Amino acid sequence: MKSHIEEEINSIKEKVLYMGSLAEEMISLSAKILNERNQELCSQVLEREEKINKLQMEIDETGVKILALYQPEATDLRTIMAATKINSELERVADQAVNIAQTSSFHFLKEIPIAPIYEIPKMSSIAQEMVKQSLDAFAKRDVELAKSVLEKDEELDTLKSKVFEDVLDLVKNSPLKAKQFIDLILISRNLEKIGDHATNIAEDVIYMVLGKDIRHHAV
Amino acid sequence: MKSHIEEEINSIKEKVLYMGSLAEEMISLSAKILNERNQELCSQVLEREEKINKLQMEIDETGVKILALYQPEATDLRTIMAATKINSELERVADQAVNIAQTSSFHFLKEIPIAPIYEIPKMSSIAQEMVKQSLDAFAKRDVELAKSVLEKDEELDTLKSKVFEDVLDLVKNSPLKAKQFIDLILISRNLEKIGDHATNIAEDVIYMVLGKDIRHHAV
Repeated sequence: MKSHIEEEINSIKEKVLYMGSLAEEMISLSAKILNERNQELCSQVLEREEKINKLQMEIDETGVKILALYQPEATDLRTIMAATKINSELERVADQAVNIAQTSSFHFLKEIPIAPIYEIPKMSSIAQEMVKQSLDAFAKRDVELAKSVLEKDEELDTLKSKVFEDVLDLVKNSPLKAKQFIDLILISRNLEKIGDHATNIAEDVIYMVLGKDIRHHAV
Repeated sequence: MKSHIEEEINSIKEKVLYMGSLAEEMISLSAKILNERNQELCSQVLEREEKINKLQMEIDETGVKILALYQPEATDLRTIMAATKINSELERVADQAVNIAQTSSFHFLKEIPIAPIYEIPKMSSIAQEMVKQSLDAFAKRDVELAKSVLEKDEELDTLKSKVFEDVLDLVKNSPLKAKQFIDLILISRNLEKIGDHATNIAEDVIYMVLGKDIRHHAV
């Protein structure tokens, strides 16, 4: 039979993973809004955001409850601290996805053809993959998987710079459409931020498993 | 005589406040780089970032240590949780300030006159004020002061939209300088994000004092 604290820790982990799956869906939906100009998906993004906001508060509450009731130590303590931090990262991922969905809807509404920037869908799938892998690493307590997330961050960075260059060319050629083009830069920044949050999650996982803080290259 | 746990909690609070003062300095320095085109200040921003990164790890470590050693309850527990969260917000404030400093240095290097956007210095001083007040609220456990931070967020939002409009006009008139102008939009987004982090800090303070989670309007 499982102890109470084990049950509570499992429940907080399940909530974090559910929150992660919602966040992943939000990234994929927001990409669809831009790529397929399917504006109806916007409400689906917002529904998930609401769920995520509720989960964020529940997870924090459960974390504090476990700390107060069971005074966990070592691995259990680190797991609660990691869950609390991952919780806050995922809420920010959701915010970024909402920004992308809203900016993309605007494109659709204005019926202006979006620029042929192939980097953005690519950035979106990398960002989504990073979030997925960081949560898999959390579920499986897999340090190697967490480390592989960290490596992908650079790829996003390169693509982001590429978007900026492409957009500059577009703006110079059609300055009157500047708003639509600049929006693509903002979307690329949102996606870069999602990658940063996934990186933070991966670092939290490594801390949870090894008890080592590898942030800021302090190995 | 103070108990051990009181001493530890005071030490974590002092570290958070020191980190906050460094973050405030970074915001003000990064604004100066853009306004006065004083690129030499960039290294001062980076020096402070390094200190903040170290403090972030120290504060998290102290937090976990206090939880493990003293099993704090109620207010003490909430104070540790708040300190841990504020810690992470401040590190992100620092990241945004570094981005501003770097983007602004680029302007300087290229010796291209910056656009006459008056909203950006205004945004910068509001953002800095928000960070300052949210930390004062933390130090004094002042819920009213924390609430006043939340009200300022809208002002930043309005200014951000104004920057976007101004920049669009500039780009349409001088598309060849698009890069410099678009950089101003990115800086305004960095400043908006700093305001978001200050808002999060203020919410953490309210939770710490009242034990009530007011995020997502869940009063």
